[in-house]
Amino acid sequence: MSAQPVIILVEPQLAENIGAVARAMLNCGLTALRLVQPRPEWPNERARVNASGAEAVLDSAPLFRSVADATADLQRVYATTARPRDLSKLIMTPPQAAAEMRAELGRGERVGVLFGPERSGLVNDDVARADTVIAVPLNPAFSSLNLGQAVLLVAYEWFKAADATPLAVLHHNSSPPASKAHLASFLTRLEAELDASGFLRNAEMRPSMVRNIHALFGRAELTDQEVRTLHGILTALVTKWPKD
Amino acid sequence: MSAQPVIILVEPQLAENIGAVARAMLNCGLTALRLVQPRPEWPNERARVNASGAEAVLDSAPLFRSVADATADLQRVYATTARPRDLSKLIMTPPQAAAEMRAELGRGERVGVLFGPERSGLVNDDVARADTVIAVPLNPAFSSLNLGQAVLLVAYEWFKAADATPLAVLHHNSSPPASKAHLASFLTRLEAELDASGFLRNAEMRPSMVRNIHALFGRAELTDQEVRTLHGILTALVTKWPKD
Repeated sequence: MSAQPVIILVEPQLAENIGAVARAMLNCGLTALRLVQPRPEWPNERARVNASGAEAVLDSAPLFRSVADATADLQRVYATTARPRDLSKLIMTPPQAAAEMRAELGRGERVGVLFGPERSGLVNDDVARADTVIAVPLNPAFSSLNLGQAVLLVAYEWFKAADATPLAVLHHNSSPPASKAHLASFLTRLEAELDASGFLRNAEMRPSMVRNIHALFGRAELTDQEVRTLHGILTALVTKWPKD
Repeated sequence: MSAQPVIILVEPQLAENIGAVARAMLNCGLTALRLVQPRPEWPNERARVNASGAEAVLDSAPLFRSVADATADLQRVYATTARPRDLSKLIMTPPQAAAEMRAELGRGERVGVLFGPERSGLVNDDVARADTVIAVPLNPAFSSLNLGQAVLLVAYEWFKAADATPLAVLHHNSSPPASKAHLASFLTRLEAELDASGFLRNAEMRPSMVRNIHALFGRAELTDQEVRTLHGILTALVTKWPKD
């Protein structure tokens, strides 16, 4: 496993949230959780239920008596807060912090991120202990994130910073696109059927109607299979098959 | 308030999650929530507690009986799924979808995002109904997000995209996209004609055939005028007009 930041929950109050944190971490490939004085009894069954498959993250999480103990072996500590206080600290958004953490981990440094209790957040002393503050730019009128959500955004940006998914839009298609000749043969047949039905009988309008029909089907980026389906539909509509 | 995407929860199972969704939405400045057949009794006190200050989002959320009803007035629908299935749909990551939604909303289009039930996710028919699939690139070994977390990531990327310079998107057509209700009425008619013709008589194959037909026409980003043209084509093909 490559190096990753440690997530440190300081005095978390609700077992459900600790479970949600474990799930969000594992969603983003993070497995190193530390707990400082959790309020719920520990280990905790409700936390395990909410972890929904990420119980191993909970089971391997060590407990600490203080933030100082929990961060003693780390070289870089980030503190998350919704209300950056007057502490003259470097403040980063989650994507900025993610890039920074990737660089530090790449240099072999040990990195952790502190998250405070649900109601009150981190105390000033804990923020002061950190090297850098992470603040998430959100709706200024309603910026207080649930604990699991806050961990998710930091972990998600950390994961994204390494994500190799191409930025170009992916087309999910197991079947190859139809050849232009295949599409053209369908459109020729459709045109013939529409001529036979009288739909295209206005000679003046005909060219633009045909162009519009071509444009409409051309835009759908049809696969070979779909062109075959359209052939089948056309046959079905113009033929009166015996019911069975 | 500037235009924003509607968040649509399809058969949400847990009141806590609906509350968490409302909180995550308001964190990111979103207020338009719709509920399709929520399992918890509604309105719900546990949902309100979990909304932690975003109760107004819950209180103003209309209830719908079906996904079709909940999307009838929308022009662009996104479907979120952890498991993109073989439906030949455009797939986007949340930041890609956010940029796209900003562009669509900027053109005055009505946009919504579907989220499925916690355990099972959206059914294939609902994914087929959408124009675009949103999939979040996450730990491939553990990619299933909690409902509130999934909404948060989409809403967070939408919020983040507000700073971005709008994409210079060349729209293919000056005419506005068809509403989902208008497209659905054509597809319903086509389905009825294909049933009458016997094309869909294989009961086992029928659901996937219908889904593929929906996906194919959904992908073409049809305008209202084009849906009218398709209605005309369908009428022409199934009617024997007198030749003149």
